[in-house]
Formats: sequence, structure tokens, C-alpha cells
Amino acid sequence: MRYVRYMRNGQPRHGIIEQERVLEIEAPGDKKARLTGRSHEINDLQLLAPVMPGKVIGVGLNYKDHIAEFNHQIPAEPLLFLKPPSSVIGTNMHIIYPGISKRVDFEAELAVVIGEVCRHVSPREALKKVWGYTCGNDVTARDLQIRDHQWTRAKSFDTFCPLGPWIETDIDPGKLDIIARVNGEIRQHSNTSQMVFTIEELIAFASEVMTLNPGDVILTGTPSGVGPLQVGEEVSIEIEGIGVLKNTVVAG
Amino acid sequence: MRYVRYMRNGQPRHGIIEQERVLEIEAPGDKKARLTGRSHEINDLQLLAPVMPGKVIGVGLNYKDHIAEFNHQIPAEPLLFLKPPSSVIGTNMHIIYPGISKRVDFEAELAVVIGEVCRHVSPREALKKVWGYTCGNDVTARDLQIRDHQWTRAKSFDTFCPLGPWIETDIDPGKLDIIARVNGEIRQHSNTSQMVFTIEELIAFASEVMTLNPGDVILTGTPSGVGPLQVGEEVSIEIEGIGVLKNTVVAG
Repeated sequence: MRYVRYMRNGQPRHGIIEQERVLEIEAPGDKKARLTGRSHEINDLQLLAPVMPGKVIGVGLNYKDHIAEFNHQIPAEPLLFLKPPSSVIGTNMHIIYPGISKRVDFEAELAVVIGEVCRHVSPREALKKVWGYTCGNDVTARDLQIRDHQWTRAKSFDTFCPLGPWIETDIDPGKLDIIARVNGEIRQHSNTSQMVFTIEELIAFASEVMTLNPGDVILTGTPSGVGPLQVGEEVSIEIEGIGVLKNTVVAG
Repeated sequence: MRYVRYMRNGQPRHGIIEQERVLEIEAPGDKKARLTGRSHEINDLQLLAPVMPGKVIGVGLNYKDHIAEFNHQIPAEPLLFLKPPSSVIGTNMHIIYPGISKRVDFEAELAVVIGEVCRHVSPREALKKVWGYTCGNDVTARDLQIRDHQWTRAKSFDTFCPLGPWIETDIDPGKLDIIARVNGEIRQHSNTSQMVFTIEELIAFASEVMTLNPGDVILTGTPSGVGPLQVGEEVSIEIEGIGVLKNTVVAG
């Protein structure tokens, strides 16, 4: 099943996708989604981020190829950071390049959307707590990340967390191709099988620290090939079995 | 005015304090708070954190005495980090000591609660965007902070962000005594006038990065004297003109 959020009459609505149509539903993430009877052509809708997370948990250095690229060592444990909910945007929305940065990078990531409250969940039970998966872009002001040492400011600007285009519930997340393109040219191309810590391990690890609530998002790290964006460029993140998240960069 | 949140009949309610009584109101943070007509003795109520923030922004190294204590240099800019909303608890609730840490510290902090959406606000305009102030404790697993370099995990455990007991709207935040006690013994004693970056500057700086929404909290840094907590101890944060935030530590 694919879940979307979109604007209609100034209000965010939820829907499920059937072929090219969006069927409006009353409540998101409910396995017995009640249809309202309204439906729309997906191309007629302005999609929103498919979820408004209470928190976005990022994971540093979680792809073997990305670690090699930066000459880092494989970490013994996942390295967590947070992005604020105010950084989340949907597909086709603009990434705003902050005037304070001279180097803003894209980072293609598989985003896990939590479906059930969980705390101290085991890796074995972890995927049962997942609602679904979407494409994420962990946009990062690389110069500020280096200057601050702490990653928060660099990753927290408004629009620095594109998510979308929808939540796909029926895929095996462990072996999906993941591609980032800038103006159509491939810059990152890897597979979720290259993760150091699996999705199950990341959920279990994060849930040892904090309660994960429905709608919370875990960004699972980025593969090699991260690089800078320029104003006017279009960055797209494609994940096999999900779809394409596309955003254009504009000046702040 | 003092605003509180509390549980009643299984639901969070909002109120304002008049002498020892809490007058229930319909909506929080509204300058024309409509009274419901119900009222309670404050001692009969289980208080909650006075706000459930969409994000909690922390600031590292913002008291001159604390910087000297750790032999750090005064930073050129505020150093931001985030704590997740899931870490927030109210007064009289338990701080849970995680089994994974051997060193959990208290950090007394003045917490600023945002009242209006703001982005790119100037220091001069910043205080107009504030709803009020409360006491905060930026509980930190010091050993994990050192091990991870990134501060997120160390500061993100459930219960690691006590806030309360209420939001005080009518104080000048720039010159308030701030005290942390453990089992009644003073461990930190400073004044908000010792901040490196003023509250106005912190709000302006954070709002250059991200949109601040009503209810968002900025923890403004801690003075010297931070130290470890043990299971069974009671930690209290007192700020002049606000009140006392009190929490007991229990084993995880």
C-alpha cells in the first residue's frame, strides 16, 4: 500500500494510491483505512511530506562505501543525530540554500517510518513496528558541519529534510537500489544491503535510547558519492520499489 | 502569569495559577485565556511538563563559569544541539538512569518557551516572540557524550529533559539566580547574567537556522558545577522568579 499526504482546500489530507488515483482516507496508518469516497488524479495534487514526524533520527556513517570514501573507520555502534520536524518538506518543494553556507550537500537515504510505539524493541521484532518506507534526503551544510563539530546546525535548516513522495508499506527494505541524481546525472548509486547496521539493528538501537512514536522517522545513512548542490539544480532520490523524491534548490 | 499543564480524568489540561489554586483554561498560551470555571488546589494535581515542545534546542557552553571549568574557549557562535520531544518530563516525575551509562549528570538551565512562529528574528525583536520561561534540566549521559563525540545519544534518553514546574510569563530573564541542588545540597549557583550569548541572541541565532514554533523550547546552557547523579537522589533546579523543578533518579 502507498500512503500520501496532500493539500486540499487549505487542509492536509491523507490518501492511498491505486494506480494513478489517490483515494482519500480518514486516518493515516490505520490498517483498515476508511475511504471518504473522494478521489483525485495524483498529478492534480500538491503532495506534502507523507508524514509529519515528531522526531527525525539520523544515522551517521552507515554505508560501507561512504565510510571508505571519507577514510573513516567502521563504527562500533550507530552514531545518532536529530533533525528538527521544522526541516521536513515534501517532494517538488524547494530546498532553500542558506546564505550562511557555501557548501550544501545532498545525501540519499532510505527513510523508515515508525508505525507503533516502541521502546527496547529487539532487532527480531523491529520491522513489525514499521509503518513503511519512503525516500529521504539528509541535506547538510557541510562547511557548518565541519566548523561546529556538532552536526545539528548543519542538518537542521528549514527544508533540509525532504521526505517522499509517499510511504510504501509492502517492500523488503534490506536490498533496495538507492540512487541520487543531480539534474538527471547519477551521483550516488548503492544498495541498502551495503548498510553497516541493518534497519532492524538501527530501530533496536534507537529504541534503547528513546521511545519511538508512530510517525517518527529514522534516516538510515547515505552511501558514497555525496556532493554539493547549487542554486537552480534539481536533486532526486530514487529508491527501488518506492519512487522518486525530487526537489529544486533555490537561494535563501 | 503562570501556566501549568496537569492530568485530570486521564487527559492533559491547561491552567493558570492564582495563589495556591489552578484555574482551568481552554487553550494554553492565549493572552485571553478563557476560564472553564473549574479550579483545583495545586497540591492536589499531578503536574505535567508545562509544554510539549515540537523541538527542544540546546545550547552548549553558554556560561562563562562553565567554560572556564572545562578549559574550553568562549565560542564565537552558539553551539546548537537537539533533544527529542520524547525526552521531556514534568516536575516530580522520575529521571530514569539508563543501564548503558555509568555517568549521568544534571545541568540546570533556564528554558525559554516560544510563543509565536519566528524565523530570521532580530535580537531586538526576539523577546516579543517568547511565551515565557521555565526551569530545565539538560540531563546528559556524560560518558556517552564523550564516547560518541556527537552529543545526541547522550542527551536524548527518555526522561532526560525535565521541564517545569510551570511557565512564568512576567519576568526579565536576563538576571535571574539559577541553582541546582542534589538531595538539598547546592551544586550549581550562578545567574543568567553570566551567559555568553544572551537569550535574545540565542533566539535570533536559532531562528536563522530553523523556524521556531509556539511551544518550542530553547535550553540556554548550564553554569559551572555540573556533576553526577546517583539512583535514589533528588535533583532540583530553582530559578529566581519561576520556581523549583524537582525530580528523583530511578534505575532503568
